[in-house]
Amino acid sequence: MHEVPHGEILKELKKLGAECVLIQSPEGLRREAEELAGFLEENGLTVILHGEINYGACDPADSDARRLGCDALIHLGHSYMRLNLEVPTIFVPAFAKVELVPALEKNIEEIRKLGRRIALVTTAQHVHRLDEAREFLEKNGFEVLIGRGDSRVSWPGQVLGCNFSSAKVEAEGVLFIGSGLFHPLGVALATKKPTLAINPYSGDAIWMDAEAERLIRKRWAQIAKAMDAKSFGVVVSTKKGQLRLAEAKRIVELLRGHGRKARLIAMDHISYPKLEGFPFDAYVVVACPRVPIDDYENWRKPVLTPREVEPLLGLKKEYEFDEIPGVERREDEPLGVSLKL
Amino acid sequence: MHEVPHGEILKELKKLGAECVLIQSPEGLRREAEELAGFLEENGLTVILHGEINYGACDPADSDARRLGCDALIHLGHSYMRLNLEVPTIFVPAFAKVELVPALEKNIEEIRKLGRRIALVTTAQHVHRLDEAREFLEKNGFEVLIGRGDSRVSWPGQVLGCNFSSAKVEAEGVLFIGSGLFHPLGVALATKKPTLAINPYSGDAIWMDAEAERLIRKRWAQIAKAMDAKSFGVVVSTKKGQLRLAEAKRIVELLRGHGRKARLIAMDHISYPKLEGFPFDAYVVVACPRVPIDDYENWRKPVLTPREVEPLLGLKKEYEFDEIPGVERREDEPLGVSLKL
Repeated sequence: MHEVPHGEILKELKKLGAECVLIQSPEGLRREAEELAGFLEENGLTVILHGEINYGACDPADSDARRLGCDALIHLGHSYMRLNLEVPTIFVPAFAKVELVPALEKNIEEIRKLGRRIALVTTAQHVHRLDEAREFLEKNGFEVLIGRGDSRVSWPGQVLGCNFSSAKVEAEGVLFIGSGLFHPLGVALATKKPTLAINPYSGDAIWMDAEAERLIRKRWAQIAKAMDAKSFGVVVSTKKGQLRLAEAKRIVELLRGHGRKARLIAMDHISYPKLEGFPFDAYVVVACPRVPIDDYENWRKPVLTPREVEPLLGLKKEYEFDEIPGVERREDEPLGVSLKL
Repeated sequence: MHEVPHGEILKELKKLGAECVLIQSPEGLRREAEELAGFLEENGLTVILHGEINYGACDPADSDARRLGCDALIHLGHSYMRLNLEVPTIFVPAFAKVELVPALEKNIEEIRKLGRRIALVTTAQHVHRLDEAREFLEKNGFEVLIGRGDSRVSWPGQVLGCNFSSAKVEAEGVLFIGSGLFHPLGVALATKKPTLAINPYSGDAIWMDAEAERLIRKRWAQIAKAMDAKSFGVVVSTKKGQLRLAEAKRIVELLRGHGRKARLIAMDHISYPKLEGFPFDAYVVVACPRVPIDDYENWRKPVLTPREVEPLLGLKKEYEFDEIPGVERREDEPLGVSLKL
């Protein structure tokens, strides 16, 4: 499905003088990781595959690489996110082969309902084709705004499940291209603008308004469930790009200042079963925003995002989607292999 | 159930001048961890609870403590194992309150079948009462040998699921005191001597011979299943006390030298679902010996210990239990709190 550029990666490793390399891969690129390992070992390197499942650039295995005596890390499937890496890391993004224009063509009348001045966003999988989409839309009379985004994203127009900075431009509505509902939901909630999601695989177009309302209702239900909680576990992740320690400490103080007990908890991959034995009435997950929103049905205690604590304490009335901000973004990442330390 | 000595721990932390401390706990001590956190915060420290489940001293959260900006780690439930720790760590072992002598008294005739000169071993939970057991046995005419064990164990007579060095003494048979079958099975297989397991809670006594034979049959079945495997994933754990990298590399070379493909894989907590996408026919787990032996039913591919690779390749005929050796042991750990770096 995805082509991993073996030669380019080897060239970068030779530049580094690397002798031992750890290869990290998401679930969908396990076979490609093993093929790359075979190629690199034929070329004289020692290779270790990372067996943990990787969900994003926010979770680089650089510390493990160092502990395993490797002098480089290859991170398959994601582009660079600004983090303090402990070994030189080669990022190899994965781009989907599907075309975007046919799905736009099919839904052009629906897209017109967004207005003439629209924001265009997508996920990393489709970002290499975003210019084709923009050209098509411009030919059809739209003014297309592609936001630069902050340093957490790699390219203009890219959104993450935790960062919608590139969608925040002066547009009448937002056109999202990609699959799944989590990202366009986040776009709708973060921008508070009409959002249309177009799936390039199925050609379907879905307005996010109803979905966003449904999500907000579910989230208010979670907040209501946590209303009487006396004690809160405030959870951070030790994954480098999710370690929001300052924000978690702020939440602990905020809860304590309002008569609730609160305790900071740190863990790697956050899942409720590991927390079962702790005597807390509710949890706030100050890590990946997807955990409380996508996974709450697996929690036997109410679980909130940090943005939901103010409403819980009666300090805010409006619902706000949790995001992890980056600082100002200086440059785009290359669309191919990139080497970072 | 277990009493955690709050005052002593605070004293050690004050000695260290610690300001922020991470508390790591096994599943059974989650509530005690939170109580300790409350006590320490009342005394002016900043506390973070570790949310990962901890199975042993082989998995200290010292790197996480450092990453979280803590200047000390409290490790509840286990005693020190020789490892390179990145922050000062306070080990607080947990001892069971059950008495050992009544169960021995009840089974004295069974114990006599071991012979007159017996080895006495137990798990960390009961080691504080081992002298009472020894005295009782000596009064009843036994010569009792309590092996010192190597540096992986903390006290004479202690066995781990991965280390039976203290059972290897010149005795006719081995008396194991404790619950569960994994440890006494390991004792029987590692010593190849008659082994009687006495459970101090239930008062039951079980001879391990039949269990050991059953286990060995199951393991030969796993080896047979892996016989035709062309490619092997050789898995190490990044947990500090399970990172058997040199042994894993030896296994990779051994397999390759005998015409099989082999690839090194590193991960934290080893479980099959994370490995599902890799294209290997079988696995060798060079980490905690319990993973392949206790958990093999959850693996959809054959999974072996490193000791099972030689039989697989026809290089050995006899079954050998996997152990993680330590070096010579210099001194006993204290039965209470201990501070280590």
